[in-house]
Amino acid sequence: MKDHALWLNGRLVSPGSAGISPFDRGFTLGDGVFETMLALNGKVVGLTRHLGRLRYSAGVIGLDVPFDDPELVHGIKEAVTACGLSEATVRLTTSRGPGPGLEPPQTTSPTTVASVVPHTGMLHGAESAGIRMVTSSIRRNDTSPLSRIKSLNYLDNVLARAEARRHGVEDALLLNTKGLVACGTASNIFVVVKGAIMTPPMRAGVLPGITRSYILELASRLGIACEEAEICPEVFRDATEVFLTNSLTGVLPVIEIDNMAVGRGRPGEITHLLAKSYSDAMLAGAYYG
Amino acid sequence: MKDHALWLNGRLVSPGSAGISPFDRGFTLGDGVFETMLALNGKVVGLTRHLGRLRYSAGVIGLDVPFDDPELVHGIKEAVTACGLSEATVRLTTSRGPGPGLEPPQTTSPTTVASVVPHTGMLHGAESAGIRMVTSSIRRNDTSPLSRIKSLNYLDNVLARAEARRHGVEDALLLNTKGLVACGTASNIFVVVKGAIMTPPMRAGVLPGITRSYILELASRLGIACEEAEICPEVFRDATEVFLTNSLTGVLPVIEIDNMAVGRGRPGEITHLLAKSYSDAMLAGAYYG
Repeated sequence: MKDHALWLNGRLVSPGSAGISPFDRGFTLGDGVFETMLALNGKVVGLTRHLGRLRYSAGVIGLDVPFDDPELVHGIKEAVTACGLSEATVRLTTSRGPGPGLEPPQTTSPTTVASVVPHTGMLHGAESAGIRMVTSSIRRNDTSPLSRIKSLNYLDNVLARAEARRHGVEDALLLNTKGLVACGTASNIFVVVKGAIMTPPMRAGVLPGITRSYILELASRLGIACEEAEICPEVFRDATEVFLTNSLTGVLPVIEIDNMAVGRGRPGEITHLLAKSYSDAMLAGAYYG
Repeated sequence: MKDHALWLNGRLVSPGSAGISPFDRGFTLGDGVFETMLALNGKVVGLTRHLGRLRYSAGVIGLDVPFDDPELVHGIKEAVTACGLSEATVRLTTSRGPGPGLEPPQTTSPTTVASVVPHTGMLHGAESAGIRMVTSSIRRNDTSPLSRIKSLNYLDNVLARAEARRHGVEDALLLNTKGLVACGTASNIFVVVKGAIMTPPMRAGVLPGITRSYILELASRLGIACEEAEICPEVFRDATEVFLTNSLTGVLPVIEIDNMAVGRGRPGEITHLLAKSYSDAMLAGAYYG
């Protein structure tokens, strides 16, 4: 596998030949957590924050990540260097390791993988013409702690994305079990109403996105009102702008939801400003790292 | 790994050395489906029905199982014979195979694994003193098709079981997003009220259990009224018996829910009759398979 690099349980291995045990609970039950990150010119964007969130996610499911931060940083950097790409996607996964049945074994031997592959997402949301969304029939299960962590249980998101594709649009909007706005299939959502920005709080069943928190900080620095708030889907009638955030794609404008134009049906000014500020910061390496 | 046997993508392999790609979507996203079955004296209980359900689950997520039934039967029997156990747990898994990102690749190369390990569950529910349950804080997401198939997204169940253990009981009861009774963490649930049996319908967010459907047939043959019905949790006040069904443990009496005794707080007559009829049929090999 050209341009692929893999670090597995403490050492760099061949991506084509290395294997996970078929008894690994990551494979059998989705019993694990992960992060996806962007590497630009050998530097991993937001690495420290991503490692913090990996440990937070792991803590929620009672999983010990068997490496400390310096070891993980070293492993990830080894893999990023080995792949030799100027733009790459880094994925860090920790699963609970091999074990039969539903309940974790008394002694676990977690599996930790860092993979680096070519980056295929859209980097510069500021230049995007915007995407269209439909509301998924699948609700985000805010009663589950999994709705607030990045676990290996991602099949609902895969199905919701497929649903969107069947409707001929790029992504699906997920409401939670209370019918409130939650997120995209791989992103946090922000809504602009009367010049102020809102994004759902974690209790709505959303991931504490790394880019989400950076955008909240950035908006504050730029003097734009920005707050966490529970959002009814009816808000889209009044919204002038909607955008998504994700560590791999940055800030992505949404121009249509359920066949209805958002605002004027093109990326708005606040979205453009935040997308540009975000990608400038990333490309300049000024972004936390 | 003594007493373990593994069939991977068409051939018997060494359980200790064979590996799944770290890029497999089963490992990275829980993008796959599975079955667990009981092998008694070399015979797999309900094998035909389990293979049917694997294909049903796979169909719901748009995954093609890359082997036909005779090939899967052959592989499973090879692995069962290789393990040499008289009582074993067979697990058959198909994942979507390697691929980056959320969306499946254009051309997939699914991974299929049959593993055979020693059976550790309780076989003879008829002899069980019964188990205790607490209602989980996690709701079963009946808005998702995953609530009705056996997918690799099992972490909610792992967390609900852990919650039950923290309360000092054996299993958790899952309600759905409407607050109706759904299932146990790895089982269907049946409730006996005034001599008649009820079990939640699939639309409540439950798996079409193989043992569940066999129990519905068995009750009918024994002349016991048995129907699918939406069940409010308040029913447990009037229930004289409650039991769980699962392919690995058979029929398991529930004697307490949320610190309240079910009926007289011991396994009831109808549960005992069904548990015994079921395990007799299995042990006699008269059970479909």
